[in-house]
Amino acid sequence: MAHITVPSGLPGITGLLESRLDTSAPIRDLTQFILRGPNTLTEGERELIATIVSAGNACTFCTNAHAATAARYGWTRDEVDAIVWDPTTAPVSDKVRHLLIMARALQRNVQGITADMVVAARKAGATDVEIHDTVLIASLFCLYNRYVDGLASDYPPSMDYYEKLADRLTTNGYERKGLPNASH
Amino acid sequence: MAHITVPSGLPGITGLLESRLDTSAPIRDLTQFILRGPNTLTEGERELIATIVSAGNACTFCTNAHAATAARYGWTRDEVDAIVWDPTTAPVSDKVRHLLIMARALQRNVQGITADMVVAARKAGATDVEIHDTVLIASLFCLYNRYVDGLASDYPPSMDYYEKLADRLTTNGYERKGLPNASH
Repeated sequence: MAHITVPSGLPGITGLLESRLDTSAPIRDLTQFILRGPNTLTEGERELIATIVSAGNACTFCTNAHAATAARYGWTRDEVDAIVWDPTTAPVSDKVRHLLIMARALQRNVQGITADMVVAARKAGATDVEIHDTVLIASLFCLYNRYVDGLASDYPPSMDYYEKLADRLTTNGYERKGLPNASH
Repeated sequence: MAHITVPSGLPGITGLLESRLDTSAPIRDLTQFILRGPNTLTEGERELIATIVSAGNACTFCTNAHAATAARYGWTRDEVDAIVWDPTTAPVSDKVRHLLIMARALQRNVQGITADMVVAARKAGATDVEIHDTVLIASLFCLYNRYVDGLASDYPPSMDYYEKLADRLTTNGYERKGLPNASH
């Protein structure tokens, strides 16, 4: 049971976002821009960063939600799970592999990204913007994971829920449009 | 030296926010609302949450910036440092002491807030909204600390810088208004 009262039937982050439209508006804006806005990293690559951070933080809701979403962008679910387990052998470009390694290091330790990691990412073709965006996505999911688990948000009733959420996140992204009016 | 190029003369978070107005707009909006918007927690109490999280994450820039700011709201700087060192004996209300203990637990561990901590905070008078806002502020500063240290942002040339920043944060809050046009 969640630590605070949230609308029923809205597990994980969904109840928090819907019960506090005041704080969720800028959170949604930032997420939509950094995960779905114009970027030289694909949407799938950015979802992998969200997934690897959430998995490292053992945030069950966010890991399942973003793994299901990443698996819509060209990897099987088994591949996504393997990438998250060990990014050093991930079936992604060298550049993205180095960005995933940076994201995992930052999730584990605020000072975890070393100059050597950045040099390796840059050598593999990463730009300043891509390094910035990787750090910001990883940082944003350290926010999300704590927001969800810090309030002990409910789990969905079944794994099907995550597939439906992935449908929404691949079609509508992170904007609120199309959702019913908030219950409170 | 920062891992990426940022405008010179803007240390810590300031260069990141000014060099990326696209991502900084929602970050500023969220911060302004949750740290300066209408709230039953005072601005000073909310700055203490920002400080205790930043200090726990050993983020030098954010700790110095928010400790200097918190010290404008009724505590001496020595008191702020003592609160951050050990929130269990903090010269704050019972309610805020329990919220600070929750914030520290969440910074250390994504699953660190226990039901007992929430019960204790509630018994001391904390509302659902205050528990939510404490978790969100702590989560937001886990984002900020990683954003700043993940990119190895520069330190300011002297400690005076933090006092000038505290002037700004107590007067203008977290909005961009009054800042010059971004250099790029």
